Amino acid sequence: MKFIIQREQLMESVQNVMKAISSRTTIPILTGMKLEASEQGVKLTGSDSDISIESFIPAEEDGIVYVEQIEPGSIVLQAKYFPDIVRKLPQNTVEIETDNHRNVTIRSGSAEFHLNGQDAEEYPQLPQLHTEDSFELPIDLLKNLIRQTVFAVSTSETRPILTGVNVKIENEELQFTATDSHRLASRKLPLKSQETQISFNNVVIPGKSLTELNKILTDSDQVIEISVTDNQILFRTKHLYFLSRLLDGNYPETSRLIPDESKTVVTMDAKELLQSIDRASLLARENRNNVVRLITKGGNQIEINGNSPEVGDVVEEVNAETIEGEELKISFSAKYMMDALKAVGSDQVKVEFTGAMRPFLIRATDNNQVLQLILPVRTY
Amino acid sequence: MKFIIQREQLMESVQNVMKAISSRTTIPILTGMKLEASEQGVKLTGSDSDISIESFIPAEEDGIVYVEQIEPGSIVLQAKYFPDIVRKLPQNTVEIETDNHRNVTIRSGSAEFHLNGQDAEEYPQLPQLHTEDSFELPIDLLKNLIRQTVFAVSTSETRPILTGVNVKIENEELQFTATDSHRLASRKLPLKSQETQISFNNVVIPGKSLTELNKILTDSDQVIEISVTDNQILFRTKHLYFLSRLLDGNYPETSRLIPDESKTVVTMDAKELLQSIDRASLLARENRNNVVRLITKGGNQIEINGNSPEVGDVVEEVNAETIEGEELKISFSAKYMMDALKAVGSDQVKVEFTGAMRPFLIRATDNNQVLQLILPVRTY
Repeated sequence: MKFIIQREQLMESVQNVMKAISSRTTIPILTGMKLEASEQGVKLTGSDSDISIESFIPAEEDGIVYVEQIEPGSIVLQAKYFPDIVRKLPQNTVEIETDNHRNVTIRSGSAEFHLNGQDAEEYPQLPQLHTEDSFELPIDLLKNLIRQTVFAVSTSETRPILTGVNVKIENEELQFTATDSHRLASRKLPLKSQETQISFNNVVIPGKSLTELNKILTDSDQVIEISVTDNQILFRTKHLYFLSRLLDGNYPETSRLIPDESKTVVTMDAKELLQSIDRASLLARENRNNVVRLITKGGNQIEINGNSPEVGDVVEEVNAETIEGEELKISFSAKYMMDALKAVGSDQVKVEFTGAMRPFLIRATDNNQVLQLILPVRTY
Repeated sequence: MKFIIQREQLMESVQNVMKAISSRTTIPILTGMKLEASEQGVKLTGSDSDISIESFIPAEEDGIVYVEQIEPGSIVLQAKYFPDIVRKLPQNTVEIETDNHRNVTIRSGSAEFHLNGQDAEEYPQLPQLHTEDSFELPIDLLKNLIRQTVFAVSTSETRPILTGVNVKIENEELQFTATDSHRLASRKLPLKSQETQISFNNVVIPGKSLTELNKILTDSDQVIEISVTDNQILFRTKHLYFLSRLLDGNYPETSRLIPDESKTVVTMDAKELLQSIDRASLLARENRNNVVRLITKGGNQIEINGNSPEVGDVVEEVNAETIEGEELKISFSAKYMMDALKAVGSDQVKVEFTGAMRPFLIRATDNNQVLQLILPVRTY
């Protein structure tokens, strides 16, 4: 194998593929990165068996040459050193060459690295997905769906299914849902009519997979193709192939958690609410769960307060746009509330309460696509 | 005590003073920050008994009012929360008020924090330095003296005196020296004639003190006043008072370590040398001490190489400007060499070797004020 490649393109692909490589895998060859050169270009592969990522650098695209003097072949390199080597090479072009003894030479300018490679034949084959059930989404929309839900997955392995994001198509809507049983984040997306044909099983994608995918994808209105099988999901763009296993098991039915009536509704500026909760939480950190309190007041004001017996307390009155319904005192996790307000991503939010002991909802005032639910904390 | 203060000025002073406050001090009140309001302005104080910092915010300066409605008094606040509180306050003005029970109220906009204060009378008095032996340096020059030497202090407490930077005046020169016994960094500064009157004992300033001082001072051509007594050193600008204890004991005589002749002299571009050593060190990390090797070649070339038996090796030929004297193969710590090259801060450097087993020197080609010395590693 031999090729000469542009360092910048190589670096970007290496960084993407590294997201799937773990030094703690039980399969030694997966600590490496597979390089494959063909006449079409160079493909890099990384996998930790949960996530597999392939990144392709075409020999030529739009008249720009990225890879030259290609002699096809493949090798597996230790991933621990390769990214730093590529980043620190002195020139913009990099030559990578292997000999018959799997010795790899990386040349750039007058610098020459010699690395011990491993046989690419020993690298596991990535499964090829055969499915008709694929659909497309603009990349920036997919990134939003991920950002608005994935933070709410459970980090505990006591109920493994909750460490994933539930993705399903129902009532001509695509829906992402995550919950750790103390809060829930959900985002719905109406599908265009031609897309309502697609159907796949209600699937659960590991939260970690979606977090890594979100890091790799750069905001863009280009589309990404999503294919689902029984136990895997594939996200594919022109040069990226991102495969994740799915979680086994049934995701709990969450719709019954969502109250269908409310007793107190507050609409207000999202940023003001977020910042006052942030301040109240400063002195609530010593508490279990970082709990703050919200109290409705007359004159469309709410009071946010937090306290820590040893340190002191903080109290703040914030103007709401409107407060409708019953008076309310409620306590909740400041972190959950801040996460939810950021995820809603709207200037103005509507918070719907059904009493101090029932879950409450946070939505944008201008659409119902994003829904955040938080269980209050009992303090009275 | 009561005053209304500009948040930005308060924030800057709080951040400076925090550099002296440790949560691990054995004197509980030193985990707090002292606030003192007088008609002249507000003074903040922090100390971990090794370093003490006072920052003063004048009531008014150059026609700009920073502090208003001052009722003199003082209080000690828990430093753990105070910086975050100030940073997150909603408005540009902050009111701080204490009552007779040492309850402190911090108001900004509609946010109100209540903190439990402590009696300022219980806060240790900072020593007032009485000395005639003070001298002045431009702040940016002092920062350079610190940056070019302090990284070479020892981090081990086996010889505590080496954890400090030796500062002395000798031959009408101010000299900073640091060594961990594997390398040495020194910077000399010729004094102007009127300054040659000053004399103080050869002192040793804890490296940590200088590192913190360097962080607080912003590059400027304004002067800082330096006063020395037997066991303390004071750095003073208009609104900052930085006091550090000095280390006890005699600093070793380091001048005899510096070879006065050389057998091989290489002059070359500092950045090229730095980057090639950085690359060579990539595969030398698994080694003890991250050792790389330098070999002089014909045609004004040097070879830099690094290797790690399990991973591979890297070799690079770099053009020198000139190579004079004997041929040489020498091994040394890549980290020490990179630290030294950065500290010299010159485009071109001169490296003077006296054989593979003797310490070698790195200097700028255009002046001798900065001198870096490194002991090689025996590998042949």
